[in-house]
Amino acid sequence: MRVPLDGLPPRVEIYEVGPRDGLQNEDAIVPVEVKAEFVARLAAAGLRTIETTSYVHPKWVPQLADASELLAAVDRVPGVRYPVLVPNERGLDRALADGVTDIAIFGSATETFARRNLNRTVDESIAMFAPVVARARAEGLTVRAYVSMACGDPWEGDVPIDQVVSVSRRLMDLGCSQLSIGDTIGVGTPGQVTALIEAHTAAGIDAGSLAVHFHDTYGQALANTLAALRAGVTTVDASTGGIGGCPYAESATGNLATEDLVWMLDGLGVETGADLPALVATSRWMAARLGRPSPSRVVQALSPKENS
Amino acid sequence: MRVPLDGLPPRVEIYEVGPRDGLQNEDAIVPVEVKAEFVARLAAAGLRTIETTSYVHPKWVPQLADASELLAAVDRVPGVRYPVLVPNERGLDRALADGVTDIAIFGSATETFARRNLNRTVDESIAMFAPVVARARAEGLTVRAYVSMACGDPWEGDVPIDQVVSVSRRLMDLGCSQLSIGDTIGVGTPGQVTALIEAHTAAGIDAGSLAVHFHDTYGQALANTLAALRAGVTTVDASTGGIGGCPYAESATGNLATEDLVWMLDGLGVETGADLPALVATSRWMAARLGRPSPSRVVQALSPKENS
Repeated sequence: MRVPLDGLPPRVEIYEVGPRDGLQNEDAIVPVEVKAEFVARLAAAGLRTIETTSYVHPKWVPQLADASELLAAVDRVPGVRYPVLVPNERGLDRALADGVTDIAIFGSATETFARRNLNRTVDESIAMFAPVVARARAEGLTVRAYVSMACGDPWEGDVPIDQVVSVSRRLMDLGCSQLSIGDTIGVGTPGQVTALIEAHTAAGIDAGSLAVHFHDTYGQALANTLAALRAGVTTVDASTGGIGGCPYAESATGNLATEDLVWMLDGLGVETGADLPALVATSRWMAARLGRPSPSRVVQALSPKENS
Repeated sequence: MRVPLDGLPPRVEIYEVGPRDGLQNEDAIVPVEVKAEFVARLAAAGLRTIETTSYVHPKWVPQLADASELLAAVDRVPGVRYPVLVPNERGLDRALADGVTDIAIFGSATETFARRNLNRTVDESIAMFAPVVARARAEGLTVRAYVSMACGDPWEGDVPIDQVVSVSRRLMDLGCSQLSIGDTIGVGTPGQVTALIEAHTAAGIDAGSLAVHFHDTYGQALANTLAALRAGVTTVDASTGGIGGCPYAESATGNLATEDLVWMLDGLGVETGADLPALVATSRWMAARLGRPSPSRVVQALSPKENS
């Protein structure tokens, strides 16, 4: 039954992260032609933004070593954006060579994660990103920045909201057009999420330039998404089939599943352009290739034979 | 991090349904001494209302055939209520004989489910419940009524909100003190839940006398709970470990897990009296007895060795 709820946006942009954030955290290394078909199926299911791959060094992320090959294999659909994660200037060179028009950089709200993930302090990481963003903008690319560990950090515990906003502010000042506020370990709850968004708005960062990126590790992703939408956010990251999983969390539970998000938004009458049956079919297809059932509740509910 | 959210109640009553709704839908038949220990552990974990068993005929629910034996084995803690599901007058006789002080009856918002579950029309089921509620009240018992299939029905599809409220109104008029509005197949979304609660309030049924009962079949349970709390509900049904599962839904996914609920409410600073580590330990203990991992995300996140 479709019943709207006051205070929600009429339309939400789904920023699909399955091919990048999903596959980079899977044990399996997926062949490039399967990845290309995955991306094509996601576009055919109505998704308009599909983060496709990453130029992070194959030593760190062997799952995505075929980034340039994949981009050549993807038949880009007009109106669909295919952002790529770019870790540094060398990554930007490759993005420009591969005809990428949208990039993402991966920042951290905490010092410990910056050191572990980027081998830099937060200050050093922002200094490293500055020329990447400047040159990308000069070349006409859009730049999104991830702000990871925004709701908690496995080593530091609670992360003060002011600290997150300070990192966000500096990334916006570099010239990023969108920030993805990431609860990388899935510990946040709806009050914290609301406070985080409101603190960004108070610091002059409009909620319309924020995305939220939730992991369902503690089952909170969809409730947190609802809180974020009420606070003015209109872009939500999700992974078809819920594939992926944070390598820094103990549990295998991964990203918010795109299908579970679309089930909620369809029920709320919030437009996404996504075709739920096509997403579910894509998930089931991809789960078979990964050799494991999808963690998406919707996919499980609609696929009794595979999952019972 | 504990961050409150405007519009939520300061305290929520968790109505634990694991021993009844959970175990009745599990394949395994659990020995009575294990059930008694389960109930004791739940009380020790701070839960104040634990629906313990059911007097439904063992032909229909063999899992709970030991109802009287279990009630004799449970060492009732002062301040804790141990409601029992009572299907008819014969069940009420047993409840009175067993010293039960709180009962629940199981109504249906739809004709098809009333016929399949109760072998009666909705009118006939309410006529059957009338003397049960009257006598229970005369004996000083409290009576809760479940209103099942309130967000959708596997045979009828959408269930009009007016139809749910009409059944609710008639059950309240019998003398019930609490209604549990049940999304038995887990298809509802937060706008529908909000509209359902508001329609009850408009019909003169205060949100404070409503509970919500969500199944996580499509991943919506916690987002729907958040919507219900915002609409004034202060009692939430949940099953420790997420055990159970609706026999009428195709998926094995069951009730909202108490741990996932408590994680959210703890984060929101909403008081429940529940001790999360004790609940997680209880879930893990019970999962071992059921021979399968807990579907609770929180339990999975905190139990890497058992579930990875």
